[in-house]
Amino acid sequence: MKAAVIGIGLIGGSFALSLKEHGLCEEVAGVDNSRANAEKALELGLVDRMMTFEEAIPYADLIVLAVPVSAIPMLAVKVLNRIDRQVVMDMGSTKQELCDIISQHPRRGRFVATHPMWGTEYSGPEAAVRGGFTGRTVVVCDREASDPDALALAERIYAEIGMPVKYMGAEEHDTHTAYISHISHITSFALALTVLEKEREESHIFDLAGGGFESTVRLAKSSPDTWLPIFMQNKYNVLDVLREHIHQLQIIRKMLERDDTAGLRATMEKANNIRKIIE
Amino acid sequence: MKAAVIGIGLIGGSFALSLKEHGLCEEVAGVDNSRANAEKALELGLVDRMMTFEEAIPYADLIVLAVPVSAIPMLAVKVLNRIDRQVVMDMGSTKQELCDIISQHPRRGRFVATHPMWGTEYSGPEAAVRGGFTGRTVVVCDREASDPDALALAERIYAEIGMPVKYMGAEEHDTHTAYISHISHITSFALALTVLEKEREESHIFDLAGGGFESTVRLAKSSPDTWLPIFMQNKYNVLDVLREHIHQLQIIRKMLERDDTAGLRATMEKANNIRKIIE
Repeated sequence: MKAAVIGIGLIGGSFALSLKEHGLCEEVAGVDNSRANAEKALELGLVDRMMTFEEAIPYADLIVLAVPVSAIPMLAVKVLNRIDRQVVMDMGSTKQELCDIISQHPRRGRFVATHPMWGTEYSGPEAAVRGGFTGRTVVVCDREASDPDALALAERIYAEIGMPVKYMGAEEHDTHTAYISHISHITSFALALTVLEKEREESHIFDLAGGGFESTVRLAKSSPDTWLPIFMQNKYNVLDVLREHIHQLQIIRKMLERDDTAGLRATMEKANNIRKIIE
Repeated sequence: MKAAVIGIGLIGGSFALSLKEHGLCEEVAGVDNSRANAEKALELGLVDRMMTFEEAIPYADLIVLAVPVSAIPMLAVKVLNRIDRQVVMDMGSTKQELCDIISQHPRRGRFVATHPMWGTEYSGPEAAVRGGFTGRTVVVCDREASDPDALALAERIYAEIGMPVKYMGAEEHDTHTAYISHISHITSFALALTVLEKEREESHIFDLAGGGFESTVRLAKSSPDTWLPIFMQNKYNVLDVLREHIHQLQIIRKMLERDDTAGLRATMEKANNIRKIIE
């Protein structure tokens, strides 16, 4: 099998490595608008060759879309317009808009909408990680809209890489990811800004920053090119969570203002229930 | 040298291990109100023996206070009331109230106010970590109030453990820690609550939680016994940061509501400056 990965950054680059590492493809080609990314991907051995979009379609049995989510729906349509037997899959963090746009396409069945739940705060081909995906969950959305053979290929690929599959509708996916991924990025951006603002008066404020601070702000290093389209495409869900999160912070603020230690203790004990979820 | 560590949980237990590991003390005793903690500390070999507070004072050359910050000021006074030649140091996360309370004590000079900038979201003696402190910064507050020999002993201990020392006033310390530690805990508690609330409607919401979510909520596992006193003792600084943080989140919310992608991009790019601070 030959694969073409369109968008050869953190996600596309890591996925290309996985396809080769697990013997799933004898050859993987990359497609990228950025010449710098293309050169870097070749230099790092993420792909066997770089080609143009037009060259990649007839070449590949599997076409993987790993571009920012704002570009995925239109790219998906363009790819579906040009293929016949091939399988197409995406790796995007939002799914409703994509699944809506392609829903009536005559070759919708060749498409498998997937979201591997892995990433880092870094971006570009130099951020690609060997083995990054292994052990992480992957979501497959609207599986009933994919042809059985296309779905089976995607499932086989993820099984080989070692990724358990969860199935859900595109709408449910976008709600869930707003809560367990997108909001974490927003709070991190806001927290970084809060402290960076303070640094203007207190120049040594970061001297003491340790592990706790780092873990809550590291996502603020994430690329706006990746995350702005995610927030915009998942705007209504992200706003719901953001409003709820601000509300929770305001409750804590009021309890602190009123010296309501019993309320604060109850709040913290309730939050401690997160222990049952994460190790 | 013999040391007595009062409060043999995460911090006291880890510090007791460090004192032995680096050959700083030939014997370390523990003092703890909780019989369960005392038994666990002995079982885990964190200390050589457990003793009562009254036994510990004449026994020890160095007395280390590692109890919740709400208990430190009064305990510090009680210890200073009973010692003569010994050195006393604390490990608390807040310093203004402590330094104020002991400021006029005739034996203030025997006290060194320190804050090793390390911890985890776990608590109790079973959470103690060998080598946890090494490489982390320690803050020494109001050093001019400590006798030169007492300060020198604390500095030698931290140098042996491998902790660079930063000196600052108690007030500056409490402002800085509000920004680079205390607020991270509050946002984590609030974020955990936000998602736990949602789980009541969407029972599988945590199925997809990955590394990004985990890193922003892990501090929500922290003990209210440790953190509630920190928030209360540092209330005015914590409220300042919390109000600023809520303000930043509201700006992001409004930009998202208005589809202000240029504003969001500028905000994210500004937050990306955190890259210059953390690796």
